[in-house]
Amino acid sequence: MLRRSIGSIAVLASRNYAGKSVSSNMAQIIDGKAIAQEVRTQLAQELKGMEAAGYPKPHLTAVIVGEDPASEKYVANKMVACREVGISSETKRLPASTTQEELLQQIDDLNKNPLVTGILVQLPLPEHINERTICNAVHVDKDVDGFNEVNIGRTALDMDANIPATPLGVKRLLEHMKIETFGRNAVVVGRSKNVGLPMAIVLHADGKYATKAMDATVTICHRYTPPKELARHCRQADIIVVAVGKPGLITKDMVKPGACVIDVGINRIKDESTGKFKLVGDVDFEEVRQVAGHITPVPGGVGPMTVAMLMHNTLKAARRQFDDRKSS
Amino acid sequence: MLRRSIGSIAVLASRNYAGKSVSSNMAQIIDGKAIAQEVRTQLAQELKGMEAAGYPKPHLTAVIVGEDPASEKYVANKMVACREVGISSETKRLPASTTQEELLQQIDDLNKNPLVTGILVQLPLPEHINERTICNAVHVDKDVDGFNEVNIGRTALDMDANIPATPLGVKRLLEHMKIETFGRNAVVVGRSKNVGLPMAIVLHADGKYATKAMDATVTICHRYTPPKELARHCRQADIIVVAVGKPGLITKDMVKPGACVIDVGINRIKDESTGKFKLVGDVDFEEVRQVAGHITPVPGGVGPMTVAMLMHNTLKAARRQFDDRKSS
Repeated sequence: MLRRSIGSIAVLASRNYAGKSVSSNMAQIIDGKAIAQEVRTQLAQELKGMEAAGYPKPHLTAVIVGEDPASEKYVANKMVACREVGISSETKRLPASTTQEELLQQIDDLNKNPLVTGILVQLPLPEHINERTICNAVHVDKDVDGFNEVNIGRTALDMDANIPATPLGVKRLLEHMKIETFGRNAVVVGRSKNVGLPMAIVLHADGKYATKAMDATVTICHRYTPPKELARHCRQADIIVVAVGKPGLITKDMVKPGACVIDVGINRIKDESTGKFKLVGDVDFEEVRQVAGHITPVPGGVGPMTVAMLMHNTLKAARRQFDDRKSS
Repeated sequence: MLRRSIGSIAVLASRNYAGKSVSSNMAQIIDGKAIAQEVRTQLAQELKGMEAAGYPKPHLTAVIVGEDPASEKYVANKMVACREVGISSETKRLPASTTQEELLQQIDDLNKNPLVTGILVQLPLPEHINERTICNAVHVDKDVDGFNEVNIGRTALDMDANIPATPLGVKRLLEHMKIETFGRNAVVVGRSKNVGLPMAIVLHADGKYATKAMDATVTICHRYTPPKELARHCRQADIIVVAVGKPGLITKDMVKPGACVIDVGINRIKDESTGKFKLVGDVDFEEVRQVAGHITPVPGGVGPMTVAMLMHNTLKAARRQFDDRKSS
């Protein structure tokens, strides 16, 4: 009898917000690649408009220290995006032996160079360099990654800021898919300073000042959230954003039917059936898509949006610098 | 039969972490006044040590704009605390007609004055002045309230920062009472930029850099959290911090037996039985104390801790400035 009542509760819960039963439907896959392409096309048009209005060309300088194949690939993707949008760009490669002082000197030169409107130092940096010191050294206006302490503070205070590109990309995905956040439960899994924390900040914000409100009730889970509690928090969530780096962390039983699941994780694992490596997220995609209302794939979900929003930040930062110069 | 099993679950839940039954006990009242007094005594000793080591005297300047009786009272309390700790202090009173530019000029003068090591602009400010602009204008090193965008950013990034005094005071209360936060569920009710948000940040932090980790799983609820959801989140919480300004918001049925309830609210209401005004928090104290494990009273809970931690920030800020001058 008890089992039966729990069963009927589960059936009720498997209806999505529109009251439509989703029990037999698969989740709608959020095509981050297509949405990112749309953003890039819009930005290219916006840049044409800026140039027609007499603005100089924005210029992004990326700095890579050492030789990390993943970093090389990420930066190469960003350079391709720059070309497509029409942003001038270059990559500075420094040897792994570069000292923190030498890197700070490079950043200082870029900060002072009026032709450079955006600076991006690809993380991770070699262990002998303090990433926080480097992130804070990038001029707040040129910090298109939004990792500088002032941009993080402004993001927290809902001021006009360069918001880190990944949480900003997730926000744009949710808006694009018309996922309601107002008064809904959101769970962010992972508390990194560049993704998890700013994501939680953006999702809970009232948008009183510069940003559009998302107004969700937000729970931040992390490595010390007991697994049972993580599952319970996730099951209550209308929106789950996971950014941990642990394949298969989010399973079907942790997801409320109809919930929106955003997977920020990018993990390179060996496919036992083919012996080849492949990219997967933190969500058990094949299982979770059977219960979620919306889900992002990996690859092709959040990743392309991060690059697109970096372009957004780069254009916005350039425009602000050009405007500041005109008015000063 | 079902009722009976729910009953026995409730009995289990009514044991606190030490396994001791609390079902028939009232919550332990956290004596914020006494703990704040301890902090102030420690700070007075620390200051004596600084003076013996040749440090100049710290000086806090408070600025009040307009005539708000509550502001006058709060600032007066802070000045008393300064005298007790041994910090030199003064209150600058500006008329309500002061323009934003005039106030910014005052702050600039204080920022440049080497004798002033701490600046506090009492909020709220008259409506024609943008509080955010003012908070950001106070030099980051002298900003003992921790409201400047850089201090908020540093707090978020777990860097060495002037952390806003109220969340810092709550942290100290929890530490003093040995309330476990690691892996526990904490709910912060209220998302103000000066209390709720930094509280959530402090409670969830990993303490990787400058602060001691609290490592709680944190949920931020706010005005758009539906009442049923607010109750549900609170009932799951081991620690509830409420900072809203709504008397009676947190009721007995919303609190898990044995939970720690921290009440930041200060509301002036009319006592119907006496016709006199009295201060109450956001928690239904008489009811909730029957189920909570620990509870802060209002007044005498968080309030005195806020003042004590402001003194902590003032001393720490002065020491840093003096050290910086020595080394430069």
